[in-house]
Amino acid sequence: MTNLKNDRFLRALMREPVDATPVWMMRQAGRYLPEYRATRARAGSFMQLCSNPDLACEVTLQPLERFPLDAAILFSDILTIPDAMGLGLYFSEGEGPRFERPVRDEAAVRALGNPDPEGELRYVMDAVRTIRRELDGRVPLIGFSGSPWTLATYMIEGGSTKTFSRCKAMLYDRPDLMHELLGKIADSVIAYLNAQVVAGAQALMVFDTWGGVLAPRDYEQFSLAYMERIVHGLVREHEDRRVPVILFSKGGGQWAECIARSGCDGIGLDWTVDIGEIRERTQDSVALQGNLDPAILYASPERIREEVARVLESYGYGSGHVFNLGHGITPDVDPDHAGAMIEAVHELSRAYHQ
Amino acid sequence: MTNLKNDRFLRALMREPVDATPVWMMRQAGRYLPEYRATRARAGSFMQLCSNPDLACEVTLQPLERFPLDAAILFSDILTIPDAMGLGLYFSEGEGPRFERPVRDEAAVRALGNPDPEGELRYVMDAVRTIRRELDGRVPLIGFSGSPWTLATYMIEGGSTKTFSRCKAMLYDRPDLMHELLGKIADSVIAYLNAQVVAGAQALMVFDTWGGVLAPRDYEQFSLAYMERIVHGLVREHEDRRVPVILFSKGGGQWAECIARSGCDGIGLDWTVDIGEIRERTQDSVALQGNLDPAILYASPERIREEVARVLESYGYGSGHVFNLGHGITPDVDPDHAGAMIEAVHELSRAYHQ
Repeated sequence: MTNLKNDRFLRALMREPVDATPVWMMRQAGRYLPEYRATRARAGSFMQLCSNPDLACEVTLQPLERFPLDAAILFSDILTIPDAMGLGLYFSEGEGPRFERPVRDEAAVRALGNPDPEGELRYVMDAVRTIRRELDGRVPLIGFSGSPWTLATYMIEGGSTKTFSRCKAMLYDRPDLMHELLGKIADSVIAYLNAQVVAGAQALMVFDTWGGVLAPRDYEQFSLAYMERIVHGLVREHEDRRVPVILFSKGGGQWAECIARSGCDGIGLDWTVDIGEIRERTQDSVALQGNLDPAILYASPERIREEVARVLESYGYGSGHVFNLGHGITPDVDPDHAGAMIEAVHELSRAYHQ
Repeated sequence: MTNLKNDRFLRALMREPVDATPVWMMRQAGRYLPEYRATRARAGSFMQLCSNPDLACEVTLQPLERFPLDAAILFSDILTIPDAMGLGLYFSEGEGPRFERPVRDEAAVRALGNPDPEGELRYVMDAVRTIRRELDGRVPLIGFSGSPWTLATYMIEGGSTKTFSRCKAMLYDRPDLMHELLGKIADSVIAYLNAQVVAGAQALMVFDTWGGVLAPRDYEQFSLAYMERIVHGLVREHEDRRVPVILFSKGGGQWAECIARSGCDGIGLDWTVDIGEIRERTQDSVALQGNLDPAILYASPERIREEVARVLESYGYGSGHVFNLGHGITPDVDPDHAGAMIEAVHELSRAYHQ
């Protein structure tokens, strides 16, 4: 880990000693920052921001200028892969992301290609290279992807959904077709994440935003199994360094033991579980990332500090904890409150690392 | 239980022997039924439907005409109490329920009254009386209320929310004020549910739709504590009959042991937990209601039957299971698929009750 000035994040993921608990925030480059909103306005649309490596780099670095964060995360979207597969991603006012050509039958599944990370997705790799260069070893860069199940929900429904009616109908009525689709997506995710590592990503995270809407057995078969396939397909060493991978299923804390057995290095936890209890249940076999309720950032800096203290105390002594929110920071949060959280983590965590 | 022709539901809640597992569906009187949509259109608005005892009775009974359900549930809304407290409930197009006067400060909390169940809320009690009379002992009638925490989220936010920013800011910054508000709501819920029992409700259910968005300790202090207060404030015997009460926190399966200690008779479970595992963890101390994924109703009748079999097998032998979906039936489900589920429950469950 020679040229890294701050390797707390990577060390914590490998459960090696650290001086303080590392901290970063999901969506740390996001709308709660006025400087982000300014760049976003300049870019035009959200996808223009994602697909311009210089602008993506600019917003990735913005939170690091403000706060002493211990990691940067590539600014991108989880829907880049389905878009590159030819589904036609667009954003409609008030409805969020939509696909022009959703995947709803055998023919559509069979027609899906495996996008070339240095072809259709080159703009993402260019962003990784640019960010890595501009970071200049300050902190590690996290690359990421959506999980196969989560991507499949958008690909089948054609956008966001509350009922998951189409993707669950496929899961229950045509499990064979669902498995074929998930297998294709998993292969694309493996190629995509490995290319991010070659381009400069030093850790990886798989976002399984919708794993928690599945029944336990379905979660294992249709979400976790494909994340496990990804973990085993990833290049885990690059330039003589371990590339740790974090799996995050929102609402999946109850399945932490199963997730820990996937071969991942860390598990992301939302705020609905007690991180100390999960540590006990997973017996220190993996690192844990989380798990402050993002809504605590609406409270006063004093209360934020108290709640940070509580999460740190729950995790307890020793390395293996990456402090984070349990979900992305929300757009209407005061940036100073995020700062208060980060400061509290660094200050209060030292006692647990002596 | 003299005049009840079908008491399976009540017997299962008291873990007394039954011939087959009873089944009902959350939102069984709802938009998936064409006859409901016709009555709703005649009523004008949703609130006009709720507030007209004859029409509320009509839609309550509709699913019983179609399916051999083992319980009826009062057709009403969880927001009747805050509306009766003077918050000014209205429904805006595409946004769902809204309040004209949300509760955001001490003055607003202090000003809240305790609505008279036979005054402002008399229309609900009239509906209970009408339904009970028209049911004529076919199946028991379930009365219900929202939980204090769930009602508080709507009252503070002024409607539905994704971020829970205002209510969580109050919870974290002004826990004293939040407790004062929750205490007031709990008192109103107790009076409201007891009046429903006197009017004819034979079992009660508390819907804690948003308990699952809380961190574990906050759930215990701000949601479960007030449901427990309600359980202890309820008339549990009426006309020489036990009036069982079910608590349902969506996303709360992981806290089942705590919920079981509240004094309730049954726990509602969503589909993200294994009902057999929860039975083990709660050691048969309470009945369990659930927990089929409502999205299974989008699949074929054959697949629905298989998944019903799986839930029944997971619960296993003996009484104490009330079959239900893990959440409300969705508007775009084919009513015949609901019928297939109900038939499968009655048929396949007999083997577990011999």
